[in-house]
Amino acid sequence: MSPASSGAHDREEGLAFQPKFGADGLATCVTIDAGRGEVLMVAHMNAEALAATLATGVVHYWSRSRGALWRKGDTSGQTQRLIEMRVDCDQDAFLAFVAVGGDGGACHTGRRSCFYRRIETGPAGPRLTFVGTTGSG
Amino acid sequence: MSPASSGAHDREEGLAFQPKFGADGLATCVTIDAGRGEVLMVAHMNAEALAATLATGVVHYWSRSRGALWRKGDTSGQTQRLIEMRVDCDQDAFLAFVAVGGDGGACHTGRRSCFYRRIETGPAGPRLTFVGTTGSG
Repeated sequence: MSPASSGAHDREEGLAFQPKFGADGLATCVTIDAGRGEVLMVAHMNAEALAATLATGVVHYWSRSRGALWRKGDTSGQTQRLIEMRVDCDQDAFLAFVAVGGDGGACHTGRRSCFYRRIETGPAGPRLTFVGTTGSG
Repeated sequence: MSPASSGAHDREEGLAFQPKFGADGLATCVTIDAGRGEVLMVAHMNAEALAATLATGVVHYWSRSRGALWRKGDTSGQTQRLIEMRVDCDQDAFLAFVAVGGDGGACHTGRRSCFYRRIETGPAGPRLTFVGTTGSG
């Protein structure tokens, strides 16, 4: 086995945490409501956000729009307490299972999940339809 | 309302499908087993992969490692039939709910889900632990 494939094998089958960030320093985090099992949002973490999340048990992201570390909930009250975190085979994506504080929402539009529209196909091309993932209130 | 904020409002609250790809031409797709509700994988789509997915009902990705359109399952038999597709608030991430063909797996390691390891924190730093998402066989 070549050193390169040995490295890939270790990353996929080993127990060492070796997170892999892209050229922009970011990795994808998919955040799931630990109670409902519902995907709430997709956001990004850099090494600092990941380390802060694991150290504090409160989910931090990297805000690409603001170019800043973002502890989710600081403004909205919609904090995300980390219940469990997983990493994928090549260690460049994370799943965060969370308990949401505040009103239970995650989306800045006020909805519980950011994925509140379904894509419908038809002769005129794809269109969106709202689905029933309303706020928790 | 400024044209810019009007555009953002339409993107978030409208019914027009306006997918937003990054500077690299890619958007994130989170793929979920429609029956089990389990996150199987995180991958990328470019405009071509997205269009092919919606046109055929079979999930296509963009393989960053191969630099090519990738109809999942062509080699492995682990095809993904699209049941429902959602888009997030700012239309730069997708959820694909799928029915998996072949042996029911999605990960190239042979496991059903790519997220088969949990991150554990401890005094020596983060380590990984395998979790019980074994193959479907």
